Amino acid sequence: MKCTFVDVAAESDFSIQNLPYGVFSTAGMAAPQVGVAIGEYVLRMEALARLGLFAGVDGLDAERVFGSAQLNEYMGLGRGVWRAVRQALQGFLADPDHAVRRRVASVDEVAVPLGAVQMHLPAQIGDYTDFYASREHATNVGIMFRGKDNALMPNWTHLPVGYHGRASSVVVSGTALHRPSGQRRPDPAQPPVFGPSARLDYELEMAFFVGPGNALGTPLTLEQAEERIFGVVLMNDWSARDIQAWEYVPLGPFLGKSFGTTISPWVVTMDALEPFRVPQPAQDPEPLPYLRAAPPAPAHGGYDISLAVDIRPSGGGDAFYPLTRSNLKYMYWTMRQQLVHHAIGGCNMRPGDLCASGTISGPAEAERGSLLELSWSGQHDVPLGDSGLTRRFIEDGDVIRITGSCQGAGFRVGFGECTGQILPAKPAAV
Amino acid sequence: MKCTFVDVAAESDFSIQNLPYGVFSTAGMAAPQVGVAIGEYVLRMEALARLGLFAGVDGLDAERVFGSAQLNEYMGLGRGVWRAVRQALQGFLADPDHAVRRRVASVDEVAVPLGAVQMHLPAQIGDYTDFYASREHATNVGIMFRGKDNALMPNWTHLPVGYHGRASSVVVSGTALHRPSGQRRPDPAQPPVFGPSARLDYELEMAFFVGPGNALGTPLTLEQAEERIFGVVLMNDWSARDIQAWEYVPLGPFLGKSFGTTISPWVVTMDALEPFRVPQPAQDPEPLPYLRAAPPAPAHGGYDISLAVDIRPSGGGDAFYPLTRSNLKYMYWTMRQQLVHHAIGGCNMRPGDLCASGTISGPAEAERGSLLELSWSGQHDVPLGDSGLTRRFIEDGDVIRITGSCQGAGFRVGFGECTGQILPAKPAAV
Repeated sequence: MKCTFVDVAAESDFSIQNLPYGVFSTAGMAAPQVGVAIGEYVLRMEALARLGLFAGVDGLDAERVFGSAQLNEYMGLGRGVWRAVRQALQGFLADPDHAVRRRVASVDEVAVPLGAVQMHLPAQIGDYTDFYASREHATNVGIMFRGKDNALMPNWTHLPVGYHGRASSVVVSGTALHRPSGQRRPDPAQPPVFGPSARLDYELEMAFFVGPGNALGTPLTLEQAEERIFGVVLMNDWSARDIQAWEYVPLGPFLGKSFGTTISPWVVTMDALEPFRVPQPAQDPEPLPYLRAAPPAPAHGGYDISLAVDIRPSGGGDAFYPLTRSNLKYMYWTMRQQLVHHAIGGCNMRPGDLCASGTISGPAEAERGSLLELSWSGQHDVPLGDSGLTRRFIEDGDVIRITGSCQGAGFRVGFGECTGQILPAKPAAV
Repeated sequence: MKCTFVDVAAESDFSIQNLPYGVFSTAGMAAPQVGVAIGEYVLRMEALARLGLFAGVDGLDAERVFGSAQLNEYMGLGRGVWRAVRQALQGFLADPDHAVRRRVASVDEVAVPLGAVQMHLPAQIGDYTDFYASREHATNVGIMFRGKDNALMPNWTHLPVGYHGRASSVVVSGTALHRPSGQRRPDPAQPPVFGPSARLDYELEMAFFVGPGNALGTPLTLEQAEERIFGVVLMNDWSARDIQAWEYVPLGPFLGKSFGTTISPWVVTMDALEPFRVPQPAQDPEPLPYLRAAPPAPAHGGYDISLAVDIRPSGGGDAFYPLTRSNLKYMYWTMRQQLVHHAIGGCNMRPGDLCASGTISGPAEAERGSLLELSWSGQHDVPLGDSGLTRRFIEDGDVIRITGSCQGAGFRVGFGECTGQILPAKPAAV
C-alpha cells in the first residue's frame, strides 16, 4: 500500500502502514487537537471527520473525539473503532478516487506540515506504572548491587515486577529538565548530604497506553489484555542513581525518578506493529496460567523494534554520538503479560494509563540501556564516538535522544524521537 | 462561636469550628457538587454562592467552583481564599442577623440532610503517594521482617520514606471491595501459587490533599509547604500482606495495595485543625535544613487527632468491636515535611494530589494500626471485644470502620467515617 496524498520517503518513520496518533497545536489554533502523522505532515483528524471520512465508524463521535486535546476518550473506544479508523485513513491516503479525497482541493485543507506543529502529551495520564521486564537489565543491576549469585530476585521469573510511578511529571519530548537535588549518601560511613544528583542517568524504555481497561475488582484475561492496549511510545525514564540508592529501601524508587519522565509524542498503534510480532524469550519456569497465552490470543507476544539512544554532549557541538543500540524483542515479559498482571488483583486500568517496560537492555555490551550499565556503576568512562569526550553519567547541557523503528519491506513504522536536555540544578530551595 | 442556623450537638463531628468540604449528590440532582458539613446537614455551597455569600472573596468564581463535581479547582486557589470562605461561612452560620442569612426563609433552601446525600470522591486524584512516617509502625514491621537489630533502615530517620501509590483505585467510604487474588508464596521452598489473598489487612492512615502545589522543577520550602496543604481525610490502606511480601522486592508495594484504598468523604481543612497543633516527636538525628521549620512557619508540625479502628466481624451481628486506638500526633514525619520532601527534586505537586501518612501506630500495643502488628504477623489471635470472635487477618464479610476527631472545649472537629466491607474474591479470571 502506498500513500498518494502526500510524498512519503522510504526512510520516513510515518508511512501509510504506521499512522501514529498525537496531540498537536499550531500558532494559529485555539486549542490542541488530535493529529495523525504521515510523511512530513500531520493530518487534522477533526477536519477529516468534518468531511465525513469516519461517518461509517460505529460508536465514534468523530468531530468531538478528534477535536479533543487528549486521546483518552478515543483510547477508551476499543480496537474495533481503532481498526475502522485506520482502514478509513488508509483508503483516503492511498486511493486518489476516494469519495472524500475528491472533495479535498489541497493538502492544506486537512493537514499541516510536521515542522509547523507543537506536540503535547497525547493523553491525560491517570496512572503511570513502570515495569522491570528486561532480564538483561535486571541481571546487570542485580550483579552490581548484590553480586552475581543473587542477581535476580526469586520473584523475577514468576511475575513482571513493577511499581507505581509519578504521572504528574511525565513530559513530552523536547521538554528540558533541571538536574534534581536531593538527599544522597556518597560516603556510606557518613550521614547523607543534600545537593544536586551526581549520578544522573537515562533509561531506554518503551511504554504502552491502555485502551478500554477494566472495572475495579474485575481482572482481565490475557486474551482481553491483548485487545486493550492502544499503542506504544518511546520513553526516557531519567534516573538520579544516587538519590534512588539512598531512598529506595524498602518501598522502591521515588524522588530518584519523579523529577521527570520523557515520552515521544506519537503513539504507534498495535495494529501498525502487528507485522513485527516475534516470539518473546523462552520463559522458564513456565508462568502461572493467568500469564500464559491461549487462542484466540496470538502466539507471539514480542515485538521486533530497533531502538537507539544517542547523546549530544555539552561542549561537543551539534553532533550526536551513540550510547545504546537495543531492541524491544529482548523483553522477557510482554506488554500483554504486564497488563494482565497489573489488573489480576482487581486494580482498575483506565484509558490513557501508561505502562512502561523498564530499561530495555540486550545481551551485548552495546545493548545496555543506561549509563549505569555502560559505565558499570560509574567505574569506567564511556567513550562518545570519535569526539574524544567520555561520560560516566549525564552532565549539564547534555541532550539524550531515543529513536526507534520497525523496518518493513519498503516501508518503516517508526516512533519519531524522544529527546530531552538536562539543565543545571536550580539553586536549592533553602 | 456557636451555630444558630441549625442545631449542632456537642458530640457532632461537624461543628461550626470544622466546616469540612465534600462532594455530594442527592436523588434529585443532575450532577454532584460541593458541600460543607454542619451538624446533621450539608450546606449547598453553590446555593450559598448564588445568594452572594462569597461575593467579597477575591479570586473565587464561587458559583462555578462550588457547582463543580470536584474540589480540585478550589484546592488550587490557596489558603487566602479558603480562609475568606471559612470566615464567610462562620458569619452566616453564627449570626442570625447576617445579611445573606436574612434572605434565607428555611434551611432547605441552602442545605440538605446528611442522611439524604450520597458522597463521592472529593477530588480527581492526579497522583497518590503513601508515606511510611510512623516510627512505631516501621519498627514493628522491621522487627518482624529483619529482626530487632535492623528494624529501621538507615535512611528512615533522615527522610520521610514514601512511594507512589495507585490513584485509580482510591474509593470513597462505603465502597465494598473484593478480596484480591494474586501470586503469593506460602511455602518459601515451593514455587508461588495463585489465589485469593489469605492475609488481608487494614492500615490506619490519614492523608492530605495538596492545594496549589508547585511547578515542575521548582521545589517548595517548608514554609511554602505549610501553606499549600488543603486538608485531611481518614484512609484505610487495605493491604494483601502475602501478595505484597512476594512481589515487593526490590521495587516496592504494587498489587498488594492497588486493589483498593478507601478514604473518608469529608476533607477537614488545616484551618479547622490549627487549634490542635502539637509538637511532633523529637527528631534525632536533626534533619537536613530543607526539612526543618523556621519562622514564619509555625513551630509545631504535629496534630493531636484521636483515631479509632473498629470491626464489624462477619457472623457477629451489627456490633462493632475495637481493633486500634491511635493518634496522628505520633507521626515522626509531619505532613509539611512530607510535602517539602516530595517536591525537593522538582516533582510537581498538583491540586488534588493525595499524600498519605503510612500506618499510624503508637507506642502501646492497642495503638498498633494494622492486624499485621496486632496479631504479630498472624502468630496469635486478636480477640474482638466480648464477642468470642477473633481475627488474625480480615475475613470475607468483615466491615472495617475508621473514625477520628479532635476534641475542643465544648466542640469537636471530626472526620466522619471511613468504612469498607470486604467481599469474597471473584472467581479467578482463568
